[in-house]
Amino acid sequence: MDLTEIGQRAKAAAAYLNRLGVAEKNKGLQEAARSLVEGEAEILKANCMDMDRARTAGMKKALLDRLELTPGRIQAMADGLMQLVALEDPTGEVLSMKKRPNGLMIGRKRVPLGVVGIIYEARPNVTADAFGLCFKTGNAVILKGGSDALESNKAVVHWLSKGLEKSGIQKDVIQLITDRNRETTRHLMRLNEYIDVLIPRGGAGLIRTVVENSTIPVIETGTGNCHIYVDEGADLEMALNIIDNAKTQRIGVCNACESLVVHRAEAKRFLPMLWKRMEEKSVEVRADAEACALVPGFVTASSEDWGSEYLNYIISLKLVGSLEEAIAHINHYNTGHSESIITNNYEHAQKFLDEIDAAAVYVNASTRFTDGNEFGFGAEIGISTQKLHARGPMGLEALTTTKYIIYGNGQIRE
Amino acid sequence: MDLTEIGQRAKAAAAYLNRLGVAEKNKGLQEAARSLVEGEAEILKANCMDMDRARTAGMKKALLDRLELTPGRIQAMADGLMQLVALEDPTGEVLSMKKRPNGLMIGRKRVPLGVVGIIYEARPNVTADAFGLCFKTGNAVILKGGSDALESNKAVVHWLSKGLEKSGIQKDVIQLITDRNRETTRHLMRLNEYIDVLIPRGGAGLIRTVVENSTIPVIETGTGNCHIYVDEGADLEMALNIIDNAKTQRIGVCNACESLVVHRAEAKRFLPMLWKRMEEKSVEVRADAEACALVPGFVTASSEDWGSEYLNYIISLKLVGSLEEAIAHINHYNTGHSESIITNNYEHAQKFLDEIDAAAVYVNASTRFTDGNEFGFGAEIGISTQKLHARGPMGLEALTTTKYIIYGNGQIRE
Repeated sequence: MDLTEIGQRAKAAAAYLNRLGVAEKNKGLQEAARSLVEGEAEILKANCMDMDRARTAGMKKALLDRLELTPGRIQAMADGLMQLVALEDPTGEVLSMKKRPNGLMIGRKRVPLGVVGIIYEARPNVTADAFGLCFKTGNAVILKGGSDALESNKAVVHWLSKGLEKSGIQKDVIQLITDRNRETTRHLMRLNEYIDVLIPRGGAGLIRTVVENSTIPVIETGTGNCHIYVDEGADLEMALNIIDNAKTQRIGVCNACESLVVHRAEAKRFLPMLWKRMEEKSVEVRADAEACALVPGFVTASSEDWGSEYLNYIISLKLVGSLEEAIAHINHYNTGHSESIITNNYEHAQKFLDEIDAAAVYVNASTRFTDGNEFGFGAEIGISTQKLHARGPMGLEALTTTKYIIYGNGQIRE
Repeated sequence: MDLTEIGQRAKAAAAYLNRLGVAEKNKGLQEAARSLVEGEAEILKANCMDMDRARTAGMKKALLDRLELTPGRIQAMADGLMQLVALEDPTGEVLSMKKRPNGLMIGRKRVPLGVVGIIYEARPNVTADAFGLCFKTGNAVILKGGSDALESNKAVVHWLSKGLEKSGIQKDVIQLITDRNRETTRHLMRLNEYIDVLIPRGGAGLIRTVVENSTIPVIETGTGNCHIYVDEGADLEMALNIIDNAKTQRIGVCNACESLVVHRAEAKRFLPMLWKRMEEKSVEVRADAEACALVPGFVTASSEDWGSEYLNYIISLKLVGSLEEAIAHINHYNTGHSESIITNNYEHAQKFLDEIDAAAVYVNASTRFTDGNEFGFGAEIGISTQKLHARGPMGLEALTTTKYIIYGNGQIRE
C-alpha cells in the first residue's frame, strides 16, 4: 500500500473515530489488550527473528535490550492499554461557552487532532503504547517504527487489530508502515494533506531528523541537559540527596541531572561531600578549574561539557558567584527540560522559578519528577521541550485540539 | 548585523522582557504609539520612496494600496497599540496548582513564548501591529517584512524604538531584518537556536514557503475555502441573507464564503432566489450540472472549483442528497477555516457541529464572524487553520506558553 492510500484511509478512520463513543473506544482497548496476550507466542516468534537479525548485524547490547520482547513485556503492553481504559476521555468537553452582544453563542470544544504520525526507533513496546494513547483520544495513528523491529511491530499490530476487529472497530484506525525504504520516511514527513501532527519518539538524532525534515507540525519530545543549582545557604545534605537521586536513580533518562552549578560560598564545604558521594556511585565529576583546585579527584571540564547530555555516570560542575550568574549559565546551556534550585532563600526561589526558561522548574526537589505519571496525568506521550501546543510531560490532552462551535439564529456581520 | 547576532540580542531581550512588569510594558506601548504619530512626516517620506519604487517596478494597484501609508493609517497603527494597553496581560497567571501525594506542589504558569519571528508581505501596518502584540505578551520580536516596504518598515521601527527608548525600554525587543537577500529569509527560518516560534502573515504562497522551509515551529495562519450548507427545510430567506453577507460583505478575506452546498430538496425554490441575489451583487455562480439545468445563468463548475478560494466575486455551488453527503464534501474540500449550516433541524445542527473538521463551525450564522474582535479577544494575531497550539482566531494567549513550577522540600524519586 502506498503512503497516499495509507493517508486517505487514516483520514477516513479519523472521521469514523470522531463519531465513536467512549464506551466503544474502551471496549476496543480492552479487546486489543486481551488479544496481545493471546498472541504472545506469535509475537515472541516474530521478535526472535528481529533479535537474530540484529545480533548478526552486530547491534549493541543496550539496543538489543530495547528491542527484545518477553512474556512480561507483552503483559506490560497489555496492562498499559488497560490503564488507559480507566482514564477520562478528554474529548467532547466544551471548555467555555459565551454569548456575544449579537446573540451568537460561541463555545470551544476539545476534539481529537485527527491523524497522528509516530516515528520511533526499534522499541516494539512503543507500538502498543502509541496506538493506545492515540486511540483513547479518538485519533487515527500511522506508525513508522525502526526497521530492526519490523517483524515484531507487524506482529503487535496484527494482534492489536484482531482485538479491535473483535470489538467491531474499523481496522484502519491503526496502520503500520512496513516499508524499510528511507525515502518512505521522508515522504511521510511531508504528508501534510493527511497527517495533522507528527511525533518523533526516540533519541536526539531521530528527533533532529524529524524537526529538520518535516513540513507537518511536530511535537518535539526532547533531550534533557538538566541542571541543579546549589545556592548559598542551601541545606547541603538535602542538596546531596537530590543530586544523587537526580543523577543516579536512573541513568540514561531525559530528566536525569547532567550539570551542577554551585555557589562559590558553599564550595569548600560542599564539594568534598559531593566528591565522596559521587565516588561511591562511580560518577565522574567534570568541573571548572576552580573546583578542581579544591577537589583533586575532579576531572577538568572542557567547554563542551556545559552543553552535554551524558546519559551516563558523568556530571559537570561549575562554580558561580551569584544567583544571576547561575540563571544566565543555565539559560544558556539548558535544553528547556527540567532545572532545580536547592535553596532556603525565598527571593532566590521565586527568581529562579520566574527566570529559568524550561518546561519544569523546581525548588528543592529532584528533576526526576518530570514525568506524566509523577505529575498525575495517568499516561504520558512524551515530554515536550518545545513551547508550542504542549510543554513538559504530555498527557492525553496533548493529543487533542479544540474547535469553535457557534450557535446563531441568522446573524450576519455588519 | 548578521542573523546570529540578531538572534542573540533577541534572546537576551526576551529574558529582559520576561522580568518587565505590565505597567512598564503598557508605558512602552503608549510611548511607542505617541512616537509613531510624532514621526508621521518622516514615515510618510520613507513610504513615498517605497511607493515610487513599486510604481516604477509595475506593482499592481491592490498591492500598492496595501503598501501605502497615510496620516490616517499611521494614526490607526498608533490606536492599535493604545488598544493593547487596555487588554489584560495573559502572562504570569498560574492556571492550576495541585499538591501531589509526595508533597510536591505542581503548578502551571502562563509565560511568554520568548522570541517570535514574523515574516510578512509589503504591508507596513503589520510592523506596528505585530510588534505590539508580541511586546504586550512579553516576547521579543524579529520582523522580516516584504522588501518592497523596507524603507517604510525602517521608519516605523525607528519611531517605535524611539518611543520605547523614551520609556526606558531596551531597544533589542524589536529588531527588523533589513537585508533584501532571499538567503537571509531561508536562514531565518532555520534559526532554531534563537527563535521559538515563526508566524507567517500574508497570502497562501508566503505561508506555504514558510511551512515547507522552516525548522522552527510555525503557527500557520491560513487560507479559507469556507462553505455554507443549506439544509432541507432551512429558512431560505435567512440562508440567502447569510450567503450574501458571507460572500459580499468583504471580498478577499479568509472568512468569506467561497462554496455553497445545497440540499436537492430545496433546489427548485432556492436556486432562483439565489441567482437573483447573486446577480444583483455581480457574483458569478459556478455550479454542478444539475443546478445549471435549473438556472441557465449559472456557469458550469470544473472539478477545480470545489477546492478554490476565489477571494473574488465568484462562488461555487454543489447539490447534495443528504447531510452526510454535505459533510463528506465539506470535509474533503475545506481548508479547516469556517463552515456554516443553515438548518432548522436539531439533529442536523448537532451532527454538523460534531463532524465538520474546521476551526469554527457555525449554525445559522455568517462565516464572516471568525475574527478575534468578533469573538471578543480584543486583538488578533491571525486565524490559525492548523491544529497544534492554537486553532481559529488567535488572541494574546496564542503568543504565550506555559511552564511547570514545582515547590518541594527535599523530595527525591523512589
